[in-house]
Amino acid sequence: MRTEISSLGEFGLIDHLTKNNETVNAGTILSVGDDAAVIDQFGRQCVISTDLLVEGVHFDLMYTPLKHLGYKAVAVNLSDIYAMNATPTHITLSIGISNKFSVEALEEFYDGVYAACEKFNIDLIGGDTTSSKMGFVISVTAIGEVAPDKYVTRSGAGVLDLLCVSGDLGGAYLGLQLLEREKKIFLENPKIQPDLESQAYLVGRILKPEPRADIVEWLQENGVVPTSMIDVSDGLSSELLHICTKSDVGCVLYEEKIPIHEDARKMAIEFNVGAAACALSGGEDYELLFSIRQSDYETILKNPAITVIGHIVGKYDGCNMITKSGNKHKLTAQGWNAF
Amino acid sequence: MRTEISSLGEFGLIDHLTKNNETVNAGTILSVGDDAAVIDQFGRQCVISTDLLVEGVHFDLMYTPLKHLGYKAVAVNLSDIYAMNATPTHITLSIGISNKFSVEALEEFYDGVYAACEKFNIDLIGGDTTSSKMGFVISVTAIGEVAPDKYVTRSGAGVLDLLCVSGDLGGAYLGLQLLEREKKIFLENPKIQPDLESQAYLVGRILKPEPRADIVEWLQENGVVPTSMIDVSDGLSSELLHICTKSDVGCVLYEEKIPIHEDARKMAIEFNVGAAACALSGGEDYELLFSIRQSDYETILKNPAITVIGHIVGKYDGCNMITKSGNKHKLTAQGWNAF
Repeated sequence: MRTEISSLGEFGLIDHLTKNNETVNAGTILSVGDDAAVIDQFGRQCVISTDLLVEGVHFDLMYTPLKHLGYKAVAVNLSDIYAMNATPTHITLSIGISNKFSVEALEEFYDGVYAACEKFNIDLIGGDTTSSKMGFVISVTAIGEVAPDKYVTRSGAGVLDLLCVSGDLGGAYLGLQLLEREKKIFLENPKIQPDLESQAYLVGRILKPEPRADIVEWLQENGVVPTSMIDVSDGLSSELLHICTKSDVGCVLYEEKIPIHEDARKMAIEFNVGAAACALSGGEDYELLFSIRQSDYETILKNPAITVIGHIVGKYDGCNMITKSGNKHKLTAQGWNAF
Repeated sequence: MRTEISSLGEFGLIDHLTKNNETVNAGTILSVGDDAAVIDQFGRQCVISTDLLVEGVHFDLMYTPLKHLGYKAVAVNLSDIYAMNATPTHITLSIGISNKFSVEALEEFYDGVYAACEKFNIDLIGGDTTSSKMGFVISVTAIGEVAPDKYVTRSGAGVLDLLCVSGDLGGAYLGLQLLEREKKIFLENPKIQPDLESQAYLVGRILKPEPRADIVEWLQENGVVPTSMIDVSDGLSSELLHICTKSDVGCVLYEEKIPIHEDARKMAIEFNVGAAACALSGGEDYELLFSIRQSDYETILKNPAITVIGHIVGKYDGCNMITKSGNKHKLTAQGWNAF
């Protein structure tokens, strides 16, 4: 018998392969199934997350500067740690490289890695360097700490909680479309050099995402503990459904509330796509999506980088978006499905 | 300017890329440059190691059963944690897979992963699953614990300490040669089915290495704290030079003392290579190489799985092997150099 991976999809595959995974160590507090795992370290808690980035799947070296790639490889991992309401402290970095890379090229990559480490006060403490006959492969594991039981999972959202998101969404997806378009033009006519400077915001969103350390810090300083949290790597729709499934609730999302940057709005028109669709299904924005208690509403209003986009409802009301025209649309997971 | 990676080699490359790596967190006890890193977790110590395995470089799916591969991917990481005199507790596992894999094939791989987890009491707590257009990629990060300051690095060997190794060496290399030979015969004439059953020991050494949890446990129970330790992944010669370089000492190794299994001896004759050369440069045996104080000699003798193979001398005496014929040979690193 042969079951195709595509018949399960990414999330189905992970569920399938880990469904019999039993933990035996008393120190294992939270295992597979969230942004990161939590283990008890002698009464304090340690948060761990890992990502694998593969050339041709996650990045295209034709338009990705190696320094940005190094920065991003670290950034996306830190984002998972922040999404647990934790503070990252250490990373390990493994790379598989072909001999098409020069030492200077790798130095550029590491410059980006160290820039991210410096910005977020992270120590690079180990890794593995190996050859690869099949392109560039990057694996980062991030380790963080959190005060006992102060970590925030995907599963704590309660009915009437407010749904919040940081920054703006859809920009990374549109930046990627722009780079892909310019690549195609360049391949067809190498004399035409792309002018991307006027689109620095969107290009920056895809090439150099910034994990929202500032949001986690602000929430802590202002005494707001989200009831659930996740980072937006696969698109708002997919992440909302993760929170609702894990929390056993439904949600109402208001299309008009979704924060979208002016540059993204304009570019969406140029590409003839809906800006909201880019936010819902685009992914790679690395913003934080979280739910808060209604009692924290006044506090949240003080932070202009946080937008309330909807609220949690009962499970049987489902997960829906109210469109600008007032229609109700069922949210569906687009997410990642490269198989 | 373009510097080829091959001009630095694996170890030179890592040194080069990490030479400006400064750690900022007070909790970072031991960073890049040993089998694993050590970080302080609120007064107790956490040991972390990571490996990246790439199809076509580290394994050949033509003769590697997926279940064995899953087991080995975990085992080689645990070996790094044991080499720090620590006890592994958790792993994360990331895989990059092409759609040539079926769900059933991945289940086999995970069966091996879970078998290793069960045997060594490890919890699989997280990971990443992604597609890969370029073959199978596996990244494992292992996390362990050790009593404060009881971890053992590569850098503590002192003059007159005794050099010890667990188990026997060279078998994994000969097992690999055997599999490569049978693969070649099979490709030339698919009607000839390999009979590997009579070589179960050597084939097992390469396909299903066992990290020496038992040795670490025995040393602890018998009150022996090695002055330095490393696991034998790249060959005895390379590992000995790591210990000597990091400890700023030299060593004398006696060829006749190197433990070699009877099956390995016979196969070395069949392949017309020196069995000792296989032990020195072959790699993948995943035994433990460590130094002990002379005062622990009597204790060590009680364990038949440990062999004393030489001793530490001053730095200026260099790193040498005394051959069976009584000649002195300078040890050179063969190690890994796939570029």
